[in-house]
Amino acid sequence: MGRITARWPITKVSVAESCSARVDVLAVEEPLEIRVAGEPLVVTMRTPGHDVELAAGFLVSEGIIARGDQFRAAIHCGGPGSGGAENTYNVLDVSLTADVGPLGREHARSFYATSSCGVCGKASIDAVHTVSSYTLTDDETVMDAGRIAELPDTLRAAQTVFDKTGGLHAAGLFDAATGELLALREDVGRHNAVDKVIGWALLNDRLPLRGTVLQVSGRASFELVQKAVMAGVPMLTAVSAPSSLAVQLARDSGLTLVGFLRGQTMNVYTHPQRIDNPLKQRVKA
Amino acid sequence: MGRITARWPITKVSVAESCSARVDVLAVEEPLEIRVAGEPLVVTMRTPGHDVELAAGFLVSEGIIARGDQFRAAIHCGGPGSGGAENTYNVLDVSLTADVGPLGREHARSFYATSSCGVCGKASIDAVHTVSSYTLTDDETVMDAGRIAELPDTLRAAQTVFDKTGGLHAAGLFDAATGELLALREDVGRHNAVDKVIGWALLNDRLPLRGTVLQVSGRASFELVQKAVMAGVPMLTAVSAPSSLAVQLARDSGLTLVGFLRGQTMNVYTHPQRIDNPLKQRVKA
Repeated sequence: MGRITARWPITKVSVAESCSARVDVLAVEEPLEIRVAGEPLVVTMRTPGHDVELAAGFLVSEGIIARGDQFRAAIHCGGPGSGGAENTYNVLDVSLTADVGPLGREHARSFYATSSCGVCGKASIDAVHTVSSYTLTDDETVMDAGRIAELPDTLRAAQTVFDKTGGLHAAGLFDAATGELLALREDVGRHNAVDKVIGWALLNDRLPLRGTVLQVSGRASFELVQKAVMAGVPMLTAVSAPSSLAVQLARDSGLTLVGFLRGQTMNVYTHPQRIDNPLKQRVKA
Repeated sequence: MGRITARWPITKVSVAESCSARVDVLAVEEPLEIRVAGEPLVVTMRTPGHDVELAAGFLVSEGIIARGDQFRAAIHCGGPGSGGAENTYNVLDVSLTADVGPLGREHARSFYATSSCGVCGKASIDAVHTVSSYTLTDDETVMDAGRIAELPDTLRAAQTVFDKTGGLHAAGLFDAATGELLALREDVGRHNAVDKVIGWALLNDRLPLRGTVLQVSGRASFELVQKAVMAGVPMLTAVSAPSSLAVQLARDSGLTLVGFLRGQTMNVYTHPQRIDNPLKQRVKA
């Protein structure tokens, strides 16, 4: 179970009550690069385990193979994130039989292929730090815990389409000082809803998004944390659980990450100093 | 709102009660191909609307631009799905300023890029039909509505990691005749959980997966329907809502798609003939 779940120290904040230190169990998220005959095919953010099945199933889903005898073997190999030495178990090289045609040619529909460079584990996290134009470490945004607790209800009330379909994710950008909803976007894809909000900010010359908090309707994945960091958002709050890689990236980027924001309580995974609770000083951040 | 939601006729099945015909409102899901200076950059499955923001936000998230003045203009143009004539509004071409470097070179981390071919709307759906090795239209799998109603609880009870983290999606493959759980996989990514189940089937020489039903923990997206179709699964059941494109693909592929499977009721979006309810003949399928 060591690679499927990870333990992480959190600050449990309850509005108008003292905070407490806890340890939370996270679902592990790590990138897997699938290669065929040594050639990179795709990178997917996955929970480690059953990697051979994942690669096999992906090849079926993409119409590359359809029978078990076409799948010869798979082996975890050292990848870019390993420094050439250590095996990270995040690169899987698959061998197919000769009757499988060249990849990416005869398949009439596209699949997502990664562009060249390494994205294995640590490497990808480091790279995000490099590319982001904005740093969060010196951001002094502070938001009242009571206001944070209201975000999910405010977001839900503003979702016009969800009530009809039950099928849309939402991302809402709020002013940290006033709690005002600045922008709300809904989409079948969580990442799209966030991109739309960030695009709204770009087109309105509001980047970096200092002094704001981004509320999302579902879980907090690595990808969502990354988007927040790239836009200079200092705080990301989610109704549900974050993944391990989301928490790591948030920690390293200076982002305050809040999960399980429900009712009057929330789990603060990283940088709790931005959350203003009269009693928070009872627990060290 | 016409492009954000869509109406669809469904069969509402309630265990041990008569079925009824309803109209459900779906969240629209369509592919958007984002181009920069005419070059395809990425395809994302999104809800139409705020496409310019989506493209702008994606470019920020990927570290390509960081300021509003770098984003010059965006225009919807005819794409591969349009037959060169009609504008599907599913291709958006973005112009950036000259100071933005060449794409995909200097960015240290990879982003998902689409491989050449068109994936706009109808085109991609047609393509899936072409590649799938298995047809579902002649599949005569039938499953009892009462057994279907038990799937979510069975899946949840078997999820060992979710209870600890609250952060994992699950996909479970069941025998349609007996209700037996054949394989369960959990992952931070819904598509990964399904790929792992399909990979399990491939490696155990069980493709095509006739006589089975695939239960997923969340919503039913186009991508999940596609994976089920590629593996020859005749029925996909989801706890939450399907998207419009998921329903269209299921209809065209002969897949029975069930959504909002909760308690004793379910919404059947396509091919209800595979659901055995003593009273279902009161409503035409």
